[in-house]
Amino acid sequence: MNYQAPKDKTAAPQSVTTGPIQGSRKVYAAPASHPGMRVPFREIRLGDPTLEPVRVYDPSGPYTEDSAAIDLQQGLPAVRDAWIAARGFAAIEGRTVKPEDNGHVSAERLVRPCPAERVLRRGADGQRVTQYEFARAGLITEEMVYAAFRENLAREKALEGAGGRRADGEDFGAAIPDFVTPEFVRDEIALGRAILPANINHPELEPMVIGRNFLVKVNANIGNSAVTSGAAEEVEKLVWATRWGADTVMDLSTGRNIHNIRSWIIRNSPVPIGTVPIYQALEKVDGDPLKLDWEVFKDTLIEQAEQGIDYFTIHAGVRLAHVPLTARRVTGIVSRGGSIMARWCLAGHRESFLYEHFGDICDIMRRYDVSFSLGDGLRPGSIADANDAAQFAELETLGELTKIAWDRGCQVMIEGPGHVPMHKIKQNMDKQLATCGEAPFYTLGPLTTDIAPGYDHITSGIGAAMIGWFGTAMLCYVTPKEHLGLPNRDDVKTGVITYRIAAHAADLAKGHPAARIRDDALSQARFDFRWEDQFNLSLDPDTARAFHDETLPKDVHKVAHFCSMCGPKFCSMKITQDLREEVLAMEKTAAEGMAAKSREFLEQGGALYVPAG
Amino acid sequence: MNYQAPKDKTAAPQSVTTGPIQGSRKVYAAPASHPGMRVPFREIRLGDPTLEPVRVYDPSGPYTEDSAAIDLQQGLPAVRDAWIAARGFAAIEGRTVKPEDNGHVSAERLVRPCPAERVLRRGADGQRVTQYEFARAGLITEEMVYAAFRENLAREKALEGAGGRRADGEDFGAAIPDFVTPEFVRDEIALGRAILPANINHPELEPMVIGRNFLVKVNANIGNSAVTSGAAEEVEKLVWATRWGADTVMDLSTGRNIHNIRSWIIRNSPVPIGTVPIYQALEKVDGDPLKLDWEVFKDTLIEQAEQGIDYFTIHAGVRLAHVPLTARRVTGIVSRGGSIMARWCLAGHRESFLYEHFGDICDIMRRYDVSFSLGDGLRPGSIADANDAAQFAELETLGELTKIAWDRGCQVMIEGPGHVPMHKIKQNMDKQLATCGEAPFYTLGPLTTDIAPGYDHITSGIGAAMIGWFGTAMLCYVTPKEHLGLPNRDDVKTGVITYRIAAHAADLAKGHPAARIRDDALSQARFDFRWEDQFNLSLDPDTARAFHDETLPKDVHKVAHFCSMCGPKFCSMKITQDLREEVLAMEKTAAEGMAAKSREFLEQGGALYVPAG
Repeated sequence: MNYQAPKDKTAAPQSVTTGPIQGSRKVYAAPASHPGMRVPFREIRLGDPTLEPVRVYDPSGPYTEDSAAIDLQQGLPAVRDAWIAARGFAAIEGRTVKPEDNGHVSAERLVRPCPAERVLRRGADGQRVTQYEFARAGLITEEMVYAAFRENLAREKALEGAGGRRADGEDFGAAIPDFVTPEFVRDEIALGRAILPANINHPELEPMVIGRNFLVKVNANIGNSAVTSGAAEEVEKLVWATRWGADTVMDLSTGRNIHNIRSWIIRNSPVPIGTVPIYQALEKVDGDPLKLDWEVFKDTLIEQAEQGIDYFTIHAGVRLAHVPLTARRVTGIVSRGGSIMARWCLAGHRESFLYEHFGDICDIMRRYDVSFSLGDGLRPGSIADANDAAQFAELETLGELTKIAWDRGCQVMIEGPGHVPMHKIKQNMDKQLATCGEAPFYTLGPLTTDIAPGYDHITSGIGAAMIGWFGTAMLCYVTPKEHLGLPNRDDVKTGVITYRIAAHAADLAKGHPAARIRDDALSQARFDFRWEDQFNLSLDPDTARAFHDETLPKDVHKVAHFCSMCGPKFCSMKITQDLREEVLAMEKTAAEGMAAKSREFLEQGGALYVPAG
Repeated sequence: MNYQAPKDKTAAPQSVTTGPIQGSRKVYAAPASHPGMRVPFREIRLGDPTLEPVRVYDPSGPYTEDSAAIDLQQGLPAVRDAWIAARGFAAIEGRTVKPEDNGHVSAERLVRPCPAERVLRRGADGQRVTQYEFARAGLITEEMVYAAFRENLAREKALEGAGGRRADGEDFGAAIPDFVTPEFVRDEIALGRAILPANINHPELEPMVIGRNFLVKVNANIGNSAVTSGAAEEVEKLVWATRWGADTVMDLSTGRNIHNIRSWIIRNSPVPIGTVPIYQALEKVDGDPLKLDWEVFKDTLIEQAEQGIDYFTIHAGVRLAHVPLTARRVTGIVSRGGSIMARWCLAGHRESFLYEHFGDICDIMRRYDVSFSLGDGLRPGSIADANDAAQFAELETLGELTKIAWDRGCQVMIEGPGHVPMHKIKQNMDKQLATCGEAPFYTLGPLTTDIAPGYDHITSGIGAAMIGWFGTAMLCYVTPKEHLGLPNRDDVKTGVITYRIAAHAADLAKGHPAARIRDDALSQARFDFRWEDQFNLSLDPDTARAFHDETLPKDVHKVAHFCSMCGPKFCSMKITQDLREEVLAMEKTAAEGMAAKSREFLEQGGALYVPAG
């Protein structure tokens, strides 16, 4: 199935991109303890049949199966349904959809909701609902087993087969284990150092875990706006983003049909979905921050929690006292949520209702297991404003709120900057760890310079790789359109691939035991002139192949022992392969000579081994 | 003038891209001591007439003048001619061009040489020729004055007008001055910590300096290969690369017409040109490394030095003893020069002729002031091979050669990796500084992961920004085509912009006094909704404008106080601007109240100032 952009912006989603990534196939495997579980991986086949396929982490859901049978009307299979059902939550009627939920859109412009039917559930007081509550009680959920098996990916093989090359790295005090067990996942969640975002009303979710001691994750933002973009496009962006490696997706829609588009996204999403509820709350009060109040916000929380959103960005750290700290900044407050709340606080000279109702917010979110993503409403919007008093004052408040949320049974991660020059990045990580009790950090970039609009995936990819290395658990992508416009499908892909590079570079530098398997496999393929393997092992086989074909399009060049850089007459790789054989042969001869005690021969051959320097 | 790709690959270059970058104009200024000097800058006009234009460093040469009068046949104006002439070098006849210089190309395929005529010069024994020799003698050359004025760019203004915001940064022991004076440039060159690559036969050069205490520089590679690309294309790539910010260009051609194409490049280049002479030497012996010898290499050095090449990559650090150290690597030897020399050494089981003739090489290069770029022939070609024994053994040899080159009056920089995971990057910089007496480091990337062919400008841009911060003086760009094919014009631009980002991010992090001026100007424009200024201040105004126009094409949106992300109804930047005015007004009122000793008012207004946290 290929995605077709609909002409009618109100059309229900009909098609999305499906089928495997070139050279790969989707496989499912089960941990020994749970033979019925189907944990997804992607296997990259290699041209040399004596080589094992390379198994990689795969957040793309059933869409990349060989013959994916996708029915967007019915939503994805509810893989978690039996586990959730067994926990005895009450089935509820649910909140009635109101006209303002879809921005009072007229009948002819209304996108109809996704017709997939699901049992709507809610936890009760005193009942364990969240993964945090289960973890604190010492209970391992199916989601933890699933996420552990998924995360552990080939580590046994990495440690066995590394040929003496153990993963090295600098993890800045993290506690990355040799193997990821369900108990390790449970323990990290119980300590608040990881979250497993998984709303009990999102049974389609393929569970995953976010934390400093796991693989670094990537979030992609999608969403329509008042100015542009329709419904089917957003579902395709979700599928497209996860195809290229997004681990979670945030729906930042602010246009019309926001409720109904969200139903399509959730029912068809294998990854956790995050939102910023204040965006929709603001739409409900005609875009006027001063009309916001606790009631409309609370109603929006419940609306979205019932729909199955897995994490909410809550800007409860923007307090009245922080607002004046931003007045002399070069770029003031650049977070939408932050500026809404600052406006609200300052207008009435009153404390934030999010801050004052934080306990109530926790109680609502706990009942559905919606995780907190505590928003950084005062993040710096320019190099000049990085690491300033406003930013760090809010971080202190976020630390305080983290403890309240934990006390009330909720999972928490913390959002971070923004725009930060390289020499100030580590301070962000260190302060976040110290202030927020090691709750997972989830950062936007940071952009390491302001001078390259059009290339902010790169200015921020640099900062993202670094802060990921220092300990950030999830990186929020930035696309080339940042600051300039809304990303299209190509921009989404470029953003995701750039951030997969940053996350993987971070995993390598942290010394994740399995991280180097793919690098080594690709480099070995490169050295062996296995061109197809090199393409297929890359993050984007389509682009790698297309770039190669631009210069050397013929199929014969896919097996050629040269490339367009040097051409057929001279090739450094070919020379080196020959050299290697010679050197190893000489070493072998020398060793045999040694065994035969042939002194003369040894002296002659031994000259090769003069130590360097 | 717009570049037109010629149909005939043997055609002489006829056109290149000229005209100013959008929103900018080329200006020339002179240091007080040398009123006749014309040092180039680019000025970015701002929409608000009360704001000073932003002056930026500009390596693009006369091509970006308002009404550039370019005649490729005549070459660029010889701005250095009078300075060089005054030094009393002998005019020489020069070496006769031989058929093998152009790869024995047939008459009908011959590209004719650039007809521009120049006096050919050579220094004599005992005569001061190189910038190093002048610097050691305490003499400040015109080139040093020029480079200092160019480099100092707006620092006085930065330190005056920063509104209390002094540049902060972490420079890892560098010695970045508040102002760059000619004496500072001389001293850095004399200490071997900087080079000013400037062949006495390249009078068209606009002098620039490369060193850890100056702005981080970027090199772009161009060049044809045996498989593809013609003459005019390479001259356009040179002009195109410098237009977007390449500070030096390396011509890595290995195809036919190599001598004559080079004449076009040199005569029309405002930036230093580097080459790898062993590439052409290999062409002269039919691509067979075993046929190489000192005589053919020496002849090639003289040929290229007479043509005006400013720096040579010399792989004299690849010694016989190092070769076995590479045998068990995942990717062996990936440097072309390195593999040629390893092949040569191992075949005859003999020491490298480059190493053995290193003193002779120095003596030739000194006579023309060709700078050394000591090649890292054993740089790692994969994450697995980073920082290994082979790499560091070669680095030790490069340190030894650096001292020999200095003793013989030559300028030296040192080439570096390659493929290095983030946690191993700093060790490269630290070892290079310690081993090579602080000679400037010139690194390729490094790539921080191997898994993204097609995106290696990004995998390496991350490493480049970091190693630039740690102290690398010049970054060699990597294009999206790395490992896959030869870069076209678009790839060259993407590579240069990515590396300008890395270099600038490094300058910011090091705390270069003037580096933040452009970031602050752009961020201020963004906050003020001066869209045109935001585009024009960016590294690539064309792309920034095009991306904005994709979503909001109308001209009215260029002055709109909103963007496509939030739309007209709600905008965080607009809210913040209003907030700022309110907060500042409240502060003003409070201050006035204080002066009037109105106690009640003060208490009321003072509540705004509750300190955070």
